[in-house]
Amino acid sequence: MVQIEEKARLARTASIQMAALVPEKKEEALKAIAQALTDHKKDIISANQADLAQAEKDNISAVLIKRLKFDEEKIEDVAAALEKLVELPDPVGKTHSCMELDTGLELYKISCPIGVLGIIFESRPDALVQISTLALKSGNAVLLKGGSEAAHSNRVLADTISEATSGVGLPPGWIQLLETRQDVRAMLELDKYIDLIIPRGSNAFVKYIMDNTRIPVLGHADGICHVYVDDQADMAKALKITFDAKCQYAAVCNAMETMLVDRKIAPEFLPLIRSRFKEASVELRGDEETCRIIECQTAGEEDWETEYNDLILAIKIVDGVDQAIEHINIYGSHHTDAIVTENEQKAKKFLALVDSANVFWNCSTRFSDGYRYGLGAEVGISTSKIHARGPVGLEGLVIHKWKLIGKGHIVEEYSGNNAKKFCHKPKDKGYPR
Amino acid sequence: MVQIEEKARLARTASIQMAALVPEKKEEALKAIAQALTDHKKDIISANQADLAQAEKDNISAVLIKRLKFDEEKIEDVAAALEKLVELPDPVGKTHSCMELDTGLELYKISCPIGVLGIIFESRPDALVQISTLALKSGNAVLLKGGSEAAHSNRVLADTISEATSGVGLPPGWIQLLETRQDVRAMLELDKYIDLIIPRGSNAFVKYIMDNTRIPVLGHADGICHVYVDDQADMAKALKITFDAKCQYAAVCNAMETMLVDRKIAPEFLPLIRSRFKEASVELRGDEETCRIIECQTAGEEDWETEYNDLILAIKIVDGVDQAIEHINIYGSHHTDAIVTENEQKAKKFLALVDSANVFWNCSTRFSDGYRYGLGAEVGISTSKIHARGPVGLEGLVIHKWKLIGKGHIVEEYSGNNAKKFCHKPKDKGYPR
Repeated sequence: MVQIEEKARLARTASIQMAALVPEKKEEALKAIAQALTDHKKDIISANQADLAQAEKDNISAVLIKRLKFDEEKIEDVAAALEKLVELPDPVGKTHSCMELDTGLELYKISCPIGVLGIIFESRPDALVQISTLALKSGNAVLLKGGSEAAHSNRVLADTISEATSGVGLPPGWIQLLETRQDVRAMLELDKYIDLIIPRGSNAFVKYIMDNTRIPVLGHADGICHVYVDDQADMAKALKITFDAKCQYAAVCNAMETMLVDRKIAPEFLPLIRSRFKEASVELRGDEETCRIIECQTAGEEDWETEYNDLILAIKIVDGVDQAIEHINIYGSHHTDAIVTENEQKAKKFLALVDSANVFWNCSTRFSDGYRYGLGAEVGISTSKIHARGPVGLEGLVIHKWKLIGKGHIVEEYSGNNAKKFCHKPKDKGYPR
Repeated sequence: MVQIEEKARLARTASIQMAALVPEKKEEALKAIAQALTDHKKDIISANQADLAQAEKDNISAVLIKRLKFDEEKIEDVAAALEKLVELPDPVGKTHSCMELDTGLELYKISCPIGVLGIIFESRPDALVQISTLALKSGNAVLLKGGSEAAHSNRVLADTISEATSGVGLPPGWIQLLETRQDVRAMLELDKYIDLIIPRGSNAFVKYIMDNTRIPVLGHADGICHVYVDDQADMAKALKITFDAKCQYAAVCNAMETMLVDRKIAPEFLPLIRSRFKEASVELRGDEETCRIIECQTAGEEDWETEYNDLILAIKIVDGVDQAIEHINIYGSHHTDAIVTENEQKAKKFLALVDSANVFWNCSTRFSDGYRYGLGAEVGISTSKIHARGPVGLEGLVIHKWKLIGKGHIVEEYSGNNAKKFCHKPKDKGYPR
């Protein structure tokens, strides 16, 4: 515990310097990281091979081993991503507003880093590079904890990044690696030093983090997404969208888990989509009424609350858009939900009343993603109701501070009988660098 | 517990309808509240008198009784504040950005209410009206818990507001009153239904709330504000600003609690400010070096961490701006800190490196306030590092959702060999109402 606390304290101290870095310095640091990853390619790959060897010995699943693998190709991908990150606008130091409160008294609202981020991710070494460089770009310090299967790879990567950035003058404590589960447990207690936790990994894991810390958490625990097929849906669009939302990639958070179908269109729509889903080996679980129209398993109450992350789909017949909205707001996870209809009024109602981060009309739930949204770099998808919601770009890693510049102004002069008045005049100018 | 859970569930249901209210409807509701408060003046005042009588019987302090009092004048003040609130721009439904992802596929980022707010405040009935109407204006539902000393007043006010708004068609459950301490305890557990807690009241109270809930909290537990007097300070400004920061109103969170003075200027500055503070009966507690220059009590380590909220000031001599920044970042509460100097470079360094919500140059810490900042209506002052920081206006009660409108678009078409490309073209247009 003491050791982790010391790491967190060092990160906090470094975060102050990180906040004041000029964009050019951060650019230099990101380029130095890219160069160092290439220079240390050999060490990185051999550390990764040690992890892979151990994983095979431990009978780790093939999917996990694929994620764990960090070879020359992955290093090139990561370096290419760094080049793109360099090109993104710096999220720090933007003037959100400037207001003259009175003559000579100017208030600036300016974006700044959050401070210290605690980032926990499973066994994907590229995630370490991605997240730590996003933190750097946004001027934050980071405590990193990767999956234990990637221990050797993470150690080398963190050292490489730390050395490369110290070389160009970044404060040495800005990146800290934690190595055990006890470290994570200890980190979750350090709300004194850590401002935001970003967990990446399985839903169960994220839920565990959310349940065990007072520090704010950026992320989502569940992705129970819905598509509602309205009776005024264009049949071709409905077939295309529901199929894409379920089958384009089933193991992800923005895939459809429950399909809601208007009663009036169900006898026509369900047999058509069933044959498409059958070809794709999707297992269907319908409510009683669905089971009377098409052959499928019976869905129970628990199916409405389940994220399958697999080729399984729950189907429920509803009485129009209002019932669809109600079902989604009760059983959904406030992630991404879509309506298919040609009726603009019903669509707008759905978009207004469904309480989810992403609400879609006539397109697949699979679009909810930082890259597809054009955010440049995705920090994660948040189902939180404060700070950041939906796909989160770099702007999710910054907050603002207020800078007030006077010439000896005091509040006493603005109170009492002869009080001076505030003018509150918005100014179209940025904070002088 | 069950009863509170039911109230929270009702508020959650109502919050969906609240989010979809058009600005005109909210305006109508706010006007109806102002009218109802005037119409029910008699009932309100007599309920308040019952509270006041009980308070006197219970030997409640004069300060608290003054806050508790809700007479005709206060009702008029509250009605006037409502008129101003009506005039503020609606914070909901603003298009933050619109982006064409591809032909016919348009993404809107739109401001929307947070959902359900849990608001806890001490014995000031006007706070109930203020906070519930800010919630209404921003489209949120609220659970309210006022101080038990104001139980009768709060009951009548909440009923008046609820009836007035039901009369114009707002969902009846949007405002819910909790009445006991056990209710608060129960509310803090209901992260399933409540999205944000806003506690108003003493620091100890806010700290208790922050320590006992998983729900995000908007507010600040401490206000340990500093003024640093640099050796290059203009002496007249330094005297004026430090006096104002301590004495203009000592019992508030943005008053100065610790004054830091550059060693080089201390022998000149301290005797001057001491005589001004002496006239104002300010008790001074200095570090060893300060005690050698002026007559004052000795400050201990605990003084650097204390919010006096009183005419007491801790004084420390430092070695220039770097040591001042270090002291503030270690001992401060990240609320409001000021530098007095004529040296622009040092000022900019201070504003960049002090990790506080409000950082000031050559003006009094007492300016950090929503009204003075021109925010229109103040929800509170936040020392949080996410979502909202510093004085928080109505925009602190909203978040955003993403609305994506397509024409049958699916992700499959944007992947693989013949993938369509996203254009990510920003559009200068608002979401069609």
